[in-house]
Amino acid sequence: MENKKPTLFTCLSPALLHLYDLNNAVVVIIDVFRATSTIASVLYNGAKEIIPVAEVAEAIKISTEIGGIAAGERDGKIAEGLAHGNSPLEYTRTFIENKTLVLTTTNGTRLLHMALTNNAGTIITGSFPNLSAVCEYLVEQNKNVVLGCAGWKDRYNLEDTLFAGAVISKVKNNFTIHCDSSLTAVSMYEQHQHDLHSFAPNLTHYHRLVDRFGLIEDIRFCFTPDVANVLPLYKDGTLIAVK
Amino acid sequence: MENKKPTLFTCLSPALLHLYDLNNAVVVIIDVFRATSTIASVLYNGAKEIIPVAEVAEAIKISTEIGGIAAGERDGKIAEGLAHGNSPLEYTRTFIENKTLVLTTTNGTRLLHMALTNNAGTIITGSFPNLSAVCEYLVEQNKNVVLGCAGWKDRYNLEDTLFAGAVISKVKNNFTIHCDSSLTAVSMYEQHQHDLHSFAPNLTHYHRLVDRFGLIEDIRFCFTPDVANVLPLYKDGTLIAVK
Repeated sequence: MENKKPTLFTCLSPALLHLYDLNNAVVVIIDVFRATSTIASVLYNGAKEIIPVAEVAEAIKISTEIGGIAAGERDGKIAEGLAHGNSPLEYTRTFIENKTLVLTTTNGTRLLHMALTNNAGTIITGSFPNLSAVCEYLVEQNKNVVLGCAGWKDRYNLEDTLFAGAVISKVKNNFTIHCDSSLTAVSMYEQHQHDLHSFAPNLTHYHRLVDRFGLIEDIRFCFTPDVANVLPLYKDGTLIAVK
Repeated sequence: MENKKPTLFTCLSPALLHLYDLNNAVVVIIDVFRATSTIASVLYNGAKEIIPVAEVAEAIKISTEIGGIAAGERDGKIAEGLAHGNSPLEYTRTFIENKTLVLTTTNGTRLLHMALTNNAGTIITGSFPNLSAVCEYLVEQNKNVVLGCAGWKDRYNLEDTLFAGAVISKVKNNFTIHCDSSLTAVSMYEQHQHDLHSFAPNLTHYHRLVDRFGLIEDIRFCFTPDVANVLPLYKDGTLIAVK
């Protein structure tokens, strides 16, 4: 008897999420620049947990109540009223170990909450810094997968697609994939896997982050595989590193 | 003084159309398999006009009133109640010359009506069979352009993106393009421009059309540039060939 493989789909924008069946599926939230790279960095450096929230006021309220750190980004920069932003390099072990981060971002945390309201079975977050951890988890789970690209305010962006392609490139033999989004993602990734850093200036979001805010080091981190190789799993309102 | 170039964006799904400013822009409706290829074929073969409508009942009503031909497709096959479908090869000159076609399709005509309600400045339709006519028109007009991919029931599909990429590949020097969708489209097209026919079986929609309905000849036509090189322009409810 043939062993039926689970399916894998790639969703290119939060505005298309409703087209996919998330029930019993593992949904990978992908916001390469920078929310999910920051989440990997924060948990890799020993934070106790991350509470992703939608609004700045909520981040301040919760962090005050529990003694955590409020952080967040709007339009690429530290959100007004907050002292910490969405840079993966900001969260060193010395700063973040054993602490709780309450995080709000433009695209990544929004998509996570959308997945939640669309009855996602399991939610994890993915980025190049934790690529291998994501791939290993997906293969182990042997469930249907939806790779959810956070994009930029519902627009498609290529860096999230490239990460989806990186995942597909590694796990494709374990899944049934009939999806033009996945085909495009893996094709773009395989074309650029060896020149991600030099290709980066072609991306619209690169210019938003580098030309306006000088965040070239952030981009380098966000395009480096496995430098923060943990698996962030969303459970009961928080993201924790799966041991 | 620098001559400021108009912008060009690619919209990968009708569900993302609201993110783009269509005012005063030329919107290119793209439904490669097969609505816009059929539209090119029908007008190239001398039809007087095409009236795109949303519903089968409407197609029958209007065609009866004006003495035209009702045609349409649902889920890849001739719509129930109609004698003619959405195959570009069905509309030979002998059959269609000087006639009016009233056409309804799953994705292409739907996107056209969405562009209309989103205040598109000018609406034309594009497909490989009329690639050059589209590119020449866009360059001549010198207005902002939105390449609108019809997709499949709001999902992304690669054949429409490949056509968007073909257009961008030809007109890119005439436009300002800062758009990851366009970057992806042109990259995928330039990678496959010389093997479109052998690449076709990788597309999900290929299997819908070929495996289920045997429409391999349709696919060949739809991937052949300039075999029906007219410019279909939408005006006052009808598509006509611009002379």
